[in-house]
Amino acid sequence: MRGAARRYGATVTVNETVTAEVHKLVPILGAMGIEVLEAERGRASCSLPPGPNVNHFGVTYAGSLFSAAEMLGGLVSLASFSLEGFVPIVKGLDITFRRPATTTVRAEAVLSEEEMARVEAEAVEQGKAEFRLDVELTDESGEVVARTTGVYQLRRV
Amino acid sequence: MRGAARRYGATVTVNETVTAEVHKLVPILGAMGIEVLEAERGRASCSLPPGPNVNHFGVTYAGSLFSAAEMLGGLVSLASFSLEGFVPIVKGLDITFRRPATTTVRAEAVLSEEEMARVEAEAVEQGKAEFRLDVELTDESGEVVARTTGVYQLRRV
Repeated sequence: MRGAARRYGATVTVNETVTAEVHKLVPILGAMGIEVLEAERGRASCSLPPGPNVNHFGVTYAGSLFSAAEMLGGLVSLASFSLEGFVPIVKGLDITFRRPATTTVRAEAVLSEEEMARVEAEAVEQGKAEFRLDVELTDESGEVVARTTGVYQLRRV
Repeated sequence: MRGAARRYGATVTVNETVTAEVHKLVPILGAMGIEVLEAERGRASCSLPPGPNVNHFGVTYAGSLFSAAEMLGGLVSLASFSLEGFVPIVKGLDITFRRPATTTVRAEAVLSEEEMARVEAEAVEQGKAEFRLDVELTDESGEVVARTTGVYQLRRV
């Protein structure tokens, strides 16, 4: 998942190659301006700008925050699991909103080596494996604006 | 919440006036092509087309299904509660995906008279009141594609 990079503000680098791939796979994520920051084994993150997601009350719409968190399940799967012929599917997701988002938001998810090994072994053995992904969404000042817990399934197609 | 209506397929009527208002309030819902079908005291529904929401795998993206369900909390609040100076805020939402959505999806929410009376009384007395909203999302064949439970707060601004 390496690719061309672009500096984003002072400290954030956009992975333009993977971002373009994500926008091709799920066009509505492109309409939201979601950009991939990290996509490597065990770790994925993205950014969501206010821009097209701001509502009339001046805050980022809940569904866009959901999307930034949700897409990390697919992203971290594609970057982490080297199983041919398997796809990640979201089974459910629980989101809690903590404060209004008015700046660009960063969403980040991590999978441990232990958990990845379990998922890979179970997927090979049973043709499918579920995993849970916790995501924190923070604004530019580092405040948590929302938290999610998603349940995904890696499934043989 | 009455307004100009347009026939939608054989049996569904779009409320064009309220749809335009929603797209103005939350532009990204317009980008998804979400249209308001019903917005009356105790009942709200909307439709979500595949169109801009379809991903590369031929199914409607999870975040668009979330958005169709979530926005009903605001819509049913505006249509149900006649309290001046209060706004509905989403606190959290839990979504379960049951099957892929490949057609236009309809999302529908209902609030009972008893529940609306409780929310209104509590909001006036305490300046805020929480309520829960269950939404079912069905495809054109009537199959449930997803279910959500949202928690909203009606809050004095």
